[in-house]
Amino acid sequence: MLSDIPVSWFGAIGATLTTVCWLPQAVRLIRHKNTQAISLPTNLIFFAGLFFWLVYGIAIGDWPLIAANGVSIVLTTIIVAMKLRYG
Amino acid sequence: MLSDIPVSWFGAIGATLTTVCWLPQAVRLIRHKNTQAISLPTNLIFFAGLFFWLVYGIAIGDWPLIAANGVSIVLTTIIVAMKLRYG
Repeated sequence: MLSDIPVSWFGAIGATLTTVCWLPQAVRLIRHKNTQAISLPTNLIFFAGLFFWLVYGIAIGDWPLIAANGVSIVLTTIIVAMKLRYG
Repeated sequence: MLSDIPVSWFGAIGATLTTVCWLPQAVRLIRHKNTQAISLPTNLIFFAGLFFWLVYGIAIGDWPLIAANGVSIVLTTIIVAMKLRYG
């Protein structure tokens, strides 16, 4: 039951899922070399947002924030690179 | 200069950017009706992650978390719906 899970775990599960989810998207673009449906503005703004989150994490010394946003930035960089390459 | 911005603003700017960024992606899919490059697993896992973040926000009564994840869930629902419709 959801009510048996400690509150802080919800944030941890949320952070983990919203980070690892970008892996299948990056893999799909690398495999299919088709990026037409991907929005470049979305991924550039997302990248900028992750950067601000990362700076915030570093500023307050929060390792989960640093790790989650660091990994997301790497995966989003791949997505942006594929989009710029394949259009 | 970045150093003139209060620390908490970095998180707020990060949260705002990583939320509004999904609008151009949703609009692109609605307009072009082409979702081939979009990863369904990515968006389903992202949706689940946002849901956990939202529950966490509600549990700790954090309005910025609730607002950011609530808006992201709406936009991600549109992206998932377009993907399911256009394949």
